[in-house]
Amino acid sequence: MSGDDLTLVPIGHVESPLTEAGEAPKQGFEGGPDAWLVFEPGMREALDGLQPGARVIVLTWLDRADRGVLRVHPRDDASNPMRGVFTTRSADRPNPIGLHEVEVLAVEGTRVRVSDLEALDGTPVLDIKPVLD
Amino acid sequence: MSGDDLTLVPIGHVESPLTEAGEAPKQGFEGGPDAWLVFEPGMREALDGLQPGARVIVLTWLDRADRGVLRVHPRDDASNPMRGVFTTRSADRPNPIGLHEVEVLAVEGTRVRVSDLEALDGTPVLDIKPVLD
Repeated sequence: MSGDDLTLVPIGHVESPLTEAGEAPKQGFEGGPDAWLVFEPGMREALDGLQPGARVIVLTWLDRADRGVLRVHPRDDASNPMRGVFTTRSADRPNPIGLHEVEVLAVEGTRVRVSDLEALDGTPVLDIKPVLD
Repeated sequence: MSGDDLTLVPIGHVESPLTEAGEAPKQGFEGGPDAWLVFEPGMREALDGLQPGARVIVLTWLDRADRGVLRVHPRDDASNPMRGVFTTRSADRPNPIGLHEVEVLAVEGTRVRVSDLEALDGTPVLDIKPVLD
């Protein structure tokens, strides 16, 4: 598959106690539970060298988002004036890709335990990258 | 379109003097040229409120990447031991989404000027989000 095809492949999914959108904190820095990233068996090589303690950015596909939304009240608070979604972290946006900065707690084969992940159970995982300081 | 469909919509593209992969710095912090993000006309509302001076993360689709690569020599240097792509910022990876932290320099309708963007001319833009401190 070349990069010309703009179709994402889910390389894994989130296993988390968070199951309802209302429970998820608005941002990771407000705290989220520890969770597992469960990668497809074919992704084992791509995880080679990942170590506990690493700070990484997890990219997820926010599959419950509304992709037709272009303006929102920030933080779902009607008293905040409407703004373009590109000035907010709203999940509702044309390409609902979530960015989550977390710490790797454990690596067990293709299962990766991470801290403070504000993503719902079952959310597709797209990528994981090291944080650049 | 719901979030169940994992097909990305290009909402714009990069206009940059960088046209050859060999010219692009490996990471934004090594410096990149200022560039334009040229959004589709339908995205105007989603940009509402974006201001010069804002620090944002631009998400791009690295359309020249090889999506079948799972391990690389970091920084294309054969003397670096092979590692899984998820421990590197290699463009070659299953879902080649680029993350670029930049500053907004100007907003002219649906054209947004940003600093230090290490993406090639013509690269599809997927999203723009505020940096969280």
